[in-house]
Amino acid sequence: MIAAPLSLYRTRVKPEWVDYNNHLNDGYYLVIFSLGGVDEFMNRIGMSDAERRATKTTIYTLEAHINYLREVKLDEEVEIRCQLIGFDQKRFQLYLTMHTARLGDELAATSEFMLVNIDSAGDPKSAPFRPDVATKLAEVMEAHKALPLPQNSGRAIGLPKKK
Amino acid sequence: MIAAPLSLYRTRVKPEWVDYNNHLNDGYYLVIFSLGGVDEFMNRIGMSDAERRATKTTIYTLEAHINYLREVKLDEEVEIRCQLIGFDQKRFQLYLTMHTARLGDELAATSEFMLVNIDSAGDPKSAPFRPDVATKLAEVMEAHKALPLPQNSGRAIGLPKKK
Repeated sequence: MIAAPLSLYRTRVKPEWVDYNNHLNDGYYLVIFSLGGVDEFMNRIGMSDAERRATKTTIYTLEAHINYLREVKLDEEVEIRCQLIGFDQKRFQLYLTMHTARLGDELAATSEFMLVNIDSAGDPKSAPFRPDVATKLAEVMEAHKALPLPQNSGRAIGLPKKK
Repeated sequence: MIAAPLSLYRTRVKPEWVDYNNHLNDGYYLVIFSLGGVDEFMNRIGMSDAERRATKTTIYTLEAHINYLREVKLDEEVEIRCQLIGFDQKRFQLYLTMHTARLGDELAATSEFMLVNIDSAGDPKSAPFRPDVATKLAEVMEAHKALPLPQNSGRAIGLPKKK
């Protein structure tokens, strides 16, 4: 694993994701970040669908934040990359970016998720990661810790202060 | 208009919004907040689809934040309520909550949006609100300014600090 954000997922913008402005609707940016970013990252840390079912564990999202930087159009291919910002015994903080060939190095959007490990054997409750998952998170963190804290990580929403 | 959050929208959780955890997927919370919350609010301030087309203006989302508080299940009816947090010449900050009959006073989720007015006559660019829209925003703000700053407004994502 190299010290660069992971490329996780590519998809084309579908007609049902486009709104009256003829661009990717704000809600569907999060759908893509979740399905193409978080779910793909889960596959890589031992939390694929089959592994979740077999171990009666899952991941819930606690919180998400998106910054919309550029429009993305119908049928355009988007790519999701990720950087692990941190984790503890049962939570991890994941930063994701959306890219298109047209925009090059410019980002279409950034997002950040706080997620929590869930023991789903009985009533779902938060619980420490399985040891193999914790080991994989530590491996990704070791690769990503050299990366700078990215643009928009830890942002809060607010109007610009009046001068 | 009364000094209480506006009730904007009701919908049932659709099968295509539910994920492997058999609950409303994180991405689709934002789809509901956007389509049922932001779009409905736009209708009430003179920015309905017809008004946007007639005046060549629209609204873009700059930023969004969601806190996931409780699971919501397939076919459950959710209600979206909103509170205007603030606005300036071309932006407004909208806070939305998701409710269900089952949860009563407990919130299913909270979200916050920063949105910007767009002049779409040529290449889309940010521009001051139309005067009639600014007047409606001022009316809502007058009604909502007595409300306290709500739970999770202005939050940033971060792991709990180590003790």
